Amino acid sequence: MLKNSEYFSRRGSIRQYKAERVSDEMIDEIIRQAAKAPTTGNMQLYSVIVTSSEEGKERIAGAHFNQPMVKGCSHLLTICADFNRFTRWCEINNADAGFDNPLSFISAMTDAVILAQQICTIAEMNGLGTCYLGTVTYNAAQIAEILELPELVVPVACVSIGIPAVEIPETERLPLEAFRYSEKYPRLSDGEITELYKAKDEYAPNKKFIEENGKQNLAQVFAEVRYPRAMNEEFSRTFMDFLKKSRFL
Amino acid sequence: MLKNSEYFSRRGSIRQYKAERVSDEMIDEIIRQAAKAPTTGNMQLYSVIVTSSEEGKERIAGAHFNQPMVKGCSHLLTICADFNRFTRWCEINNADAGFDNPLSFISAMTDAVILAQQICTIAEMNGLGTCYLGTVTYNAAQIAEILELPELVVPVACVSIGIPAVEIPETERLPLEAFRYSEKYPRLSDGEITELYKAKDEYAPNKKFIEENGKQNLAQVFAEVRYPRAMNEEFSRTFMDFLKKSRFL
Repeated sequence: MLKNSEYFSRRGSIRQYKAERVSDEMIDEIIRQAAKAPTTGNMQLYSVIVTSSEEGKERIAGAHFNQPMVKGCSHLLTICADFNRFTRWCEINNADAGFDNPLSFISAMTDAVILAQQICTIAEMNGLGTCYLGTVTYNAAQIAEILELPELVVPVACVSIGIPAVEIPETERLPLEAFRYSEKYPRLSDGEITELYKAKDEYAPNKKFIEENGKQNLAQVFAEVRYPRAMNEEFSRTFMDFLKKSRFL
Repeated sequence: MLKNSEYFSRRGSIRQYKAERVSDEMIDEIIRQAAKAPTTGNMQLYSVIVTSSEEGKERIAGAHFNQPMVKGCSHLLTICADFNRFTRWCEINNADAGFDNPLSFISAMTDAVILAQQICTIAEMNGLGTCYLGTVTYNAAQIAEILELPELVVPVACVSIGIPAVEIPETERLPLEAFRYSEKYPRLSDGEITELYKAKDEYAPNKKFIEENGKQNLAQVFAEVRYPRAMNEEFSRTFMDFLKKSRFL
């Protein structure tokens, strides 16, 4: 029996929050402790923009397609892959900083996502609710403009934090054997893939989801309604354009 | 005072492990609980390849530049951004899967890094030691070949796990105000940047590091010795080539 199982094996994202605010001091202490998470060469290639004012939330809500977590949360954290600060420190110290390339973006993005997840874990273990907003990469350029991000800074994760107004929702996950492989990647047959997704296909709320969307099965809901090709390709173009503008590409 | 502060504010990566192995069951249970971490649209766009055999570690050690954690650990976990399994499930279900694009890679990488960090947190809270190996992205193509990864699967995080043979090392971090900004990204002066990095510049082990490398300051050690431009650019090329081969680009 692992320690803290009751938390880790039962956690879930919280999308509705009480009006009561979390203190700025608590948010700061969560970020401070989270920053002890691993980071590439201890370079801390990230920054966290905290939006807690009503005006700030108002300004950024549209970039997140007005998802209710933005205005409903206490603090909205935009976590960025950031090689700007490090590069400036290098330049001030007469060091040749060569971080305007894709590999450096990947390193900084890794640091930023690790920090984001550590923030969520600490917040949740202290009774707060959190939720990632995937829209952060869809509208990275727009968010960068609103938050006045300089070059070599790319928003890669956005987390809303607040005091939960609802219980932790039930969520299903694939069985372990679907994604944990020994020694090498297996060659699965169609029948084996179908079997691994069977419980997900048959999960009652997912069946309802299929019906509501007028599709034949859950895979079609994901691929054709929620994450259709044209949308993925359009957001790919705008994200790559923004990476170029940011000088990582 | 936050819960579990004694862990979160004192954690550090462990690079040396005892010969005693962690049980496969414990590793599986850690991965199972970690999979309750947030994931894009609950798609679980990741896979974890567990290397625990001596032969497996032998085969992959070179791709990690023979860092001692590979052969010294109990279990080596290669965590991949994976749209292959999901795409196959879509195809089997006659759904048009449009995930062969950069935005889909970014989503899957986010899922994979979140999972990796959750695995590290659960492992460490249960007394195990963990360490990320950044070499995973330097040599992604070689690692993919060794682990027989199919298209739309890219290794993005690698974590060694074992029973610690050493104490948690001391590590310094930037002060909170260096990377936590309110409402928007600040325009810092050179003097302010210098001030934020001052404690790091003056940290005794870092001073020793500067001397050992024959440089004038810490920034030069990072930019010219540890992460020089030519290396970053070379690994950028190979990583982008591999993303193309994987069909994400």
